[in-house]
Order: sequence, then structure tokens, then C-alpha cells
Amino acid sequence: MAGAAVDARVRIRYAETDKMGVAYHANYLVWFEVGRVELLRKLGFNYRDLERKHDCHLPVVDVRCRYKSPAFYDDELIVRTRLKAVRSSFLQFTYEVLRSAEDGVLAEGETTHIVVNSKMEKTSLPESYANALAAAIAK
Amino acid sequence: MAGAAVDARVRIRYAETDKMGVAYHANYLVWFEVGRVELLRKLGFNYRDLERKHDCHLPVVDVRCRYKSPAFYDDELIVRTRLKAVRSSFLQFTYEVLRSAEDGVLAEGETTHIVVNSKMEKTSLPESYANALAAAIAK
Amino acid sequence: MAGAAVDARVRIRYAETDKMGVAYHANYLVWFEVGRVELLRKLGFNYRDLERKHDCHLPVVDVRCRYKSPAFYDDELIVRTRLKAVRSSFLQFTYEVLRSAEDGVLAEGETTHIVVNSKMEKTSLPESYANALAAAIAK
Amino acid sequence: MAGAAVDARVRIRYAETDKMGVAYHANYLVWFEVGRVELLRKLGFNYRDLERKHDCHLPVVDVRCRYKSPAFYDDELIVRTRLKAVRSSFLQFTYEVLRSAEDGVLAEGETTHIVVNSKMEKTSLPESYANALAAAIAK
Repeated sequence: MAGAAVDARVRIRYAETDKMGVAYHANYLVWFEVGRVELLRKLGFNYRDLERKHDCHLPVVDVRCRYKSPAFYDDELIVRTRLKAVRSSFLQFTYEVLRSAEDGVLAEGETTHIVVNSKMEKTSLPESYANALAAAIAK
Repeated sequence: MAGAAVDARVRIRYAETDKMGVAYHANYLVWFEVGRVELLRKLGFNYRDLERKHDCHLPVVDVRCRYKSPAFYDDELIVRTRLKAVRSSFLQFTYEVLRSAEDGVLAEGETTHIVVNSKMEKTSLPESYANALAAAIAK
Repeated sequence: MAGAAVDARVRIRYAETDKMGVAYHANYLVWFEVGRVELLRKLGFNYRDLERKHDCHLPVVDVRCRYKSPAFYDDELIVRTRLKAVRSSFLQFTYEVLRSAEDGVLAEGETTHIVVNSKMEKTSLPESYANALAAAIAK
Repeated sequence: MAGAAVDARVRIRYAETDKMGVAYHANYLVWFEVGRVELLRKLGFNYRDLERKHDCHLPVVDVRCRYKSPAFYDDELIVRTRLKAVRSSFLQFTYEVLRSAEDGVLAEGETTHIVVNSKMEKTSLPESYANALAAAIAK
């Protein structure tokens, strides 16, 4: 069971293409980041505040991405993000990347995060975040 | 069984760091690319020629990366690449990223590639490449 | 005299920050690209079509950027772009980068472009583009 | 009068190319960074230490780059950096980018930097740095 999907939009920049004429594969990880920040925002949280006010950071400890179909310059993409798992010091998100005008999934992926402070020591999510995320995933 | 490891070196650029003070995670995929191109070069091949002369491209169709310990600005890293599997239209590489002055593995990953032409149609590696890569992995 | 300003919006990504905690300076050039593509779109043109249908490309031959005040993670920026000059094989744009909630200009810049075909040979803008751009700048 | 040139080498990564088949123009600014860090290293300084031990940072406040000829995937480039001016709270560098096997200059540029602490307040270079840089430029 995963939380509800949240859609973020990104338009592919020239800078993100490569000489094969498609979006370079590492950029999908950047778009995943855009997606999960948007998911947090929809839940009422700002990742910037999480870092600033609570000294909580969510580094990626594991990422996987499967590329099914190439994406092209100026394509408007949907990054569909779901919260897959949450514990006080651990989060997982899943992602689907779609071309906004169409149906098919161009790529799908997953990230796992731990919760650390600015000294890179393990810590826990603030309770308000942990509760809201747990509620979101239970829906 | 995998082929012999080939080491490439990258020094972390300021541009590759993020506000957490570490190397941003998507850059490891770029370093993997540096690693596998160097592995091909050590086997006597140039990825540029593979594209230019043989119209063979090796897009990434699956990538995985596990991050164990952060890497910092100006660190000199070793990207240790091994060929894991090769068929005429399919390749897999594994990677370890190490800080050159130390022992521990900072991150490890794997990429899977298919072989396509510039129209993104499936094709096969030139025989000379396929044979040399098969020989390399058998060592 | 320059054409009317067109505003594009970009939100600063974590990937675009550096260890000083601000947006890395090279990213402003990417945002300029977002700005001028949006300006062309507002004039009824699509840069993708210009490349695809007309084999016209607009490489940057000169760029200047002055940074006045830093921009931070998750800031929503306005990239205010103006067409400064246009001839059949030459274009200039100017840019201002502002934080959307405020007044001050964070950075300003200028790019100069030539018109080439996919073989990097000098060519001219399609007449419809050249006329529309000339009209835009004369307003 | 400018200081002696220091050469750094960068090999163009696939990630740094764009759909026009050349190196994307914003990457030259990253290579300039590689060049000036190497220049400082040749003078016996480490930019990482400057930040860590002296809380001195050198943000770019002005950059200019002129692109004369495109650079391609896997090209080995020389970034030839010179210190152009130095004062206690201000530095300027110039850059030439050349293809290592050839003569012609592909691009040339200039960056201006101020000296700030981690709170982005103006400060001065440590005396040892200022003296060594002034000596370097006087040669």
C-alpha cells in the first residue's frame, strides 16, 4: 500500500539533453527530487523548512530507475510520486515519469532515504512530519 | 563472474556539491559513465567511435546505486568498473566508488544497457566489440 | 530599444545548489535558456520546431552574467527575458533574474547567438521567424 | 600583465553534451572552476582549505565567455587559466579552452570573484594567500 500520487511537472531543458538527442539518464534522479519535494509540499511541508528549522536532511541511500522509452527536448513531463514507506528515520518514495500529453510510463524508479542532521548523524523526523506522512500513506 | 576491474579517477567539482556540503547523488551516475567509457578504452575501444563508425549506442535502461558514505568537494575518487554481462545487444556493468586515499567503498552501483542505432532501434554490437568484451569477461 | 519582457519561472532544485548553500553560478545560464525559449513560445514559436523543421540552431557565442545577490534552494525565480537585437543570422537576448516574491534583481545577463544548421554552417532564420522577431523588438 | 598560465585537463563527458552534439555552453563555466582550482593548487593552496580553515569563499560575481568553435564528446580539453588581478577582497581570472591535440582556442572567458565568509559578508583573503597571489601575478 502506498500513499496517494502527487504529480509535478517539469519541462525538459536543452541542458538536460545529450548527443543522442534524448534526456540524459541522470536527470531523472533530479526530477525524482522535484517530485518528492512537491509531494511534501502538497502534504503541507516544505523541505527547506525541514532542513532549516528542524536540522533534518533526507539523503538518498538507494536509488533505482528503469528507463522504458526516451524523453525528448521540450517534452512536458509528469513526475508522479508516491510515498511508499515511512518510519521515524527512513522513507521510501516511488516515481513514474510520463509525457504529459500521453499515457505510457517513460521511466519508473524508487528512492530510499535516511534522516540525518547536518553533521550526517542519524536522527528522526519531527513528530508532526512523521505523523502526517504516516497518515498520508495510510489513506 | 565478472571481468577485471578498471579504475577511473574523478575529482569532485564544486558544481557537483549541494547545500548539504556533499556530492549530489545524481552525479554518481555521471561518474559511472566516466568509469565504463574508461573500461572500454582500456579494452582498446572508444565509445565515440562506436557511435560514429558503427552507429551503435548504449543507452542505460536500468540503473541502481547504493550510497554508503558521503563524498566531499575536491575528493579524488576512484570509479572501479567491471563488465558483468555481455550479449550481442545487452551489457551490464558494476561500479564501486572509493575515495582514492582510503579503503572503504562510498557507493556501489550497476547499469544495464541495450544496443540501439541512432533511430533508437535495437541492434547488435559490432562483432569485434562483442568478441573482445566476451573475452574480457571470461578472464 | 528592446522587445517586451517575457517572464519564465523556475524553482531552484537541490541539484542546483552548491556547498556554499546557494545556487551554483553556472545554472543561471541554464535558466537564461529557459527564459529565451519561453520568450520564443510567447511569440508563437517553438524552439524545438525551429530545429526540427527548419534545421536552424541558435548556439550561444557570447554570454555574460553579473551576480548581485545569491539565490537559495526552493526559491521561485522569475527569469525576465528581452530580445535585444535580431538580424537574419544573429540574435541577442538580455535577462534579469528576480526572486518572485521580491523586487531586487539577483542577476542580470546577456547572450549572443548565431544561426547555424545541424552541420554548424552559418544559415539564416526562416523569414517568418525573422519578421516576427523584428516586429517584436520594434514594439 | 597577468600571472603565468596553469593548464588543467578535462575530458568531455556524455552528460555534458546536448542534442546539437556538442558540449553544452554552461559547462564551460564548470571547467573554468576546475581551471582556477588547479591554478590555486599549483601555487600551493587548496581551495577546500581556504573555505574550511579560513572561512573564505570566492563566489563568482561576473562571468563572461566567448565561444569560438564547438567542443565534442570525449575531447580532451586544456583549460588554461591565468590570474589577472588580485586584491585583498577581489580576484580576476582569465581562461582559454583548447583541444589538447590542437592549437586553436575553442573558447575564452573571464571571472571576477569577491571574498566573503560563510555568512556571505565581505572579508579579505588570508595574508599568506594574498601575498602568494600577488607574487604570482607579478612574475
